[in-house]
Amino acid sequence: MNNFIIKNAKYLVTVNTKNEILTGATIVVTDGKIAAINPPNLPDYEVFDGSSHLIAPGLINTHTHLAMALLRGWAEGVNLDGFLERVWAAEGAIMDGETSALGTELGAGEALLSGTTTTLDMYLNPAQTHKAAVQVGLRHIAGPIFFDFPGLDGLEWPERIAFGEKWPAIHREIGGAFTPLFFMPHSVYTDSEEHLIEIAVLAKKHGARIHLHVSETEAENKQSHEMHGRTPTKVLLDAGILDAPTTYGHGVHLSDEDISISIKAGASVGHCPGSNLKLGSGIADLKKYQDLGLITGLGTDGCSSSNDLDMWSVLRLAAHMVALKHSPVDVDLVKIFRAATIDGAKAVGLEDRIGSIEVGKEADLIAIDLSALHLTPVHNVLALLVFAAGRSDVSDVWVAGNRVVRNRSLVNVDVADLKARIDIRMKVLEELK
Amino acid sequence: MNNFIIKNAKYLVTVNTKNEILTGATIVVTDGKIAAINPPNLPDYEVFDGSSHLIAPGLINTHTHLAMALLRGWAEGVNLDGFLERVWAAEGAIMDGETSALGTELGAGEALLSGTTTTLDMYLNPAQTHKAAVQVGLRHIAGPIFFDFPGLDGLEWPERIAFGEKWPAIHREIGGAFTPLFFMPHSVYTDSEEHLIEIAVLAKKHGARIHLHVSETEAENKQSHEMHGRTPTKVLLDAGILDAPTTYGHGVHLSDEDISISIKAGASVGHCPGSNLKLGSGIADLKKYQDLGLITGLGTDGCSSSNDLDMWSVLRLAAHMVALKHSPVDVDLVKIFRAATIDGAKAVGLEDRIGSIEVGKEADLIAIDLSALHLTPVHNVLALLVFAAGRSDVSDVWVAGNRVVRNRSLVNVDVADLKARIDIRMKVLEELK
Repeated sequence: MNNFIIKNAKYLVTVNTKNEILTGATIVVTDGKIAAINPPNLPDYEVFDGSSHLIAPGLINTHTHLAMALLRGWAEGVNLDGFLERVWAAEGAIMDGETSALGTELGAGEALLSGTTTTLDMYLNPAQTHKAAVQVGLRHIAGPIFFDFPGLDGLEWPERIAFGEKWPAIHREIGGAFTPLFFMPHSVYTDSEEHLIEIAVLAKKHGARIHLHVSETEAENKQSHEMHGRTPTKVLLDAGILDAPTTYGHGVHLSDEDISISIKAGASVGHCPGSNLKLGSGIADLKKYQDLGLITGLGTDGCSSSNDLDMWSVLRLAAHMVALKHSPVDVDLVKIFRAATIDGAKAVGLEDRIGSIEVGKEADLIAIDLSALHLTPVHNVLALLVFAAGRSDVSDVWVAGNRVVRNRSLVNVDVADLKARIDIRMKVLEELK
Repeated sequence: MNNFIIKNAKYLVTVNTKNEILTGATIVVTDGKIAAINPPNLPDYEVFDGSSHLIAPGLINTHTHLAMALLRGWAEGVNLDGFLERVWAAEGAIMDGETSALGTELGAGEALLSGTTTTLDMYLNPAQTHKAAVQVGLRHIAGPIFFDFPGLDGLEWPERIAFGEKWPAIHREIGGAFTPLFFMPHSVYTDSEEHLIEIAVLAKKHGARIHLHVSETEAENKQSHEMHGRTPTKVLLDAGILDAPTTYGHGVHLSDEDISISIKAGASVGHCPGSNLKLGSGIADLKKYQDLGLITGLGTDGCSSSNDLDMWSVLRLAAHMVALKHSPVDVDLVKIFRAATIDGAKAVGLEDRIGSIEVGKEADLIAIDLSALHLTPVHNVLALLVFAAGRSDVSDVWVAGNRVVRNRSLVNVDVADLKARIDIRMKVLEELK
């Protein structure tokens, strides 16, 4: 049973509607859910002593490709076009179902160790990747991926649709921490309008949400105008995609009309400043989106464009980019941290279950060990989280009340064995270098 | 005696003129200096097994204010003006000699733990701060600070000059790893031209180098034009400051003429992208400086504007800013990593002693434990260093051959005692909040 108590947390960053930060607070978790905060009496559960820790909601990575952790550092000094060329060659060489699962195991482990408890993960072979990530203990949102062309998984379009029809059952069978159903067309530049319409119908039928790349670069917008005479957002609107709650990966170059359409449709953005800077894609205007009410979470993208899955460096970068596009006085630390937690939960349709520490929510929690010199002293808790804390400060992690990281070690992964399996598989890539 | 061997390093990033990255290399350190790399026979020294580590030169932080680690998170959501107002109030309240030393002990410890072995540190009470940092084991470059006004240390101008005259003897007496003599006027907006001339004379007399803030913001340049009718660089040139090798903190807004003057004078820049972004100061053009031959190191600035002393996040940010100002294909990982090492050494006049791993140089070395999942697999060693490695991966650190970090712990600091002393001193600040 997932019953435990976090006692006397030095700081408890709730991310509730009042953005309360409590000191010396105690959290009771029963059956994986937050049953009480500071109750008068405590049940006889296992106790985690929080007196030298900050407790926060697990971070939510709203756009990534976990399996690409295997391609960390594989494509350097390139823009998005050069990146895709180089990465797709490597993926073609190695990314069968087994290797996709292997990479996802690596990525899921890295994510959990760094305090990320939920990822919106678009990748090939989702049945295999989802099973791998669930075994590691991550709250892992997966879904069938759709391209017009056969692609690296070799599937023809009708096979993709057939797999999409089967996905709800596969998803149910794999289990793990609750995640919504998702379908994931790659983008408007890899999926025709006719195919997007098919996916919209499929999503409606299954009550699924949608995730895809949207307006990552100006070149993508230009191509969309040439092919469709419209922005990617308008293509999605016209195809019926936006009838489903849709999470845009990147959403860097959204026009005011795109933003307005997206808000009305309940769409959201997974903002990936690290990847966008590294590939020269531009900088999404987080503050503008937040001010207008476009739900925006944060994400890392895959490790071949961001090199790691560190949401702490994304938090820092997101704040820096608000200062750059607006001014330092516009950096609202509350809003930055909400983007990585409750707004991320909203972006993926999980705001009723995770994203904040409130009674009734599932216990996706991280414990940040405050002992490091770089976290000393504490004058401003949110500034500590956004600008000074890092992955190495995360000591313990729970997903739906399951302890998945204990004292900086993964509970469900034999790391030596994982690395040995990776070493063997990476020999194939050596020839491509 | 500082004699030891690093045996069989998985990767040895030399940063030599050929930028060689060796595998399975062995380094022999005798009397704190690199005596041999891969010699046929090994002396009978203590051995560090490098088979699961990457060995690199210690990082060099070319602009910081270590004692401000005590003010981490103290000034959030402000630009440089608001920042200075808020920080100077706090400094006025607490930064006597003892507290400056306390903050420097904290900052020096944080720097070493994160793999920084040398800092160019401008702060009040340099005799006390330098002694503290040397005791922690850092290669700590300090020097007298000069303002027109009495300032937080209460010194009148003649007392500053008198202290400057005494500094060479104090510096010699404190000892520690070798550092050049430095004098540190704060900036052209806090030091009159007459006073700058006095400092130039003082520097010439003692053969000292100079460090000061230069063209950090457009506002500073504007003020310089209003007060002096010239850019800060030209003020420094005319005052004779640039007759001494001068390291500019920030150097964000240098005109082409400023750059040309600076190169000719042998001046250099300590580029602090994190602080500059956070305070909205702008973005220095690292690639342009490097292309033109203006020596540019990297720096964090103080912890109230960058919140930590993490040179790894600075490396990452420096690369991102090259991509932003130019393009992703202009990001040269070799040049980025050289900025944090050998170019930093050049910027502070230590290139004959540190900044690369070559026979004859002093052993300022860091061991990066490659076991983390976020460092798995390794396709590109420099991409790993610039975009994925972090402070928590640094396991062991040597300065001039002295082991100052052993298995992620400071050798010369009682951390619990340090924190207790900080807690007591921070109570004074509570009243200012």
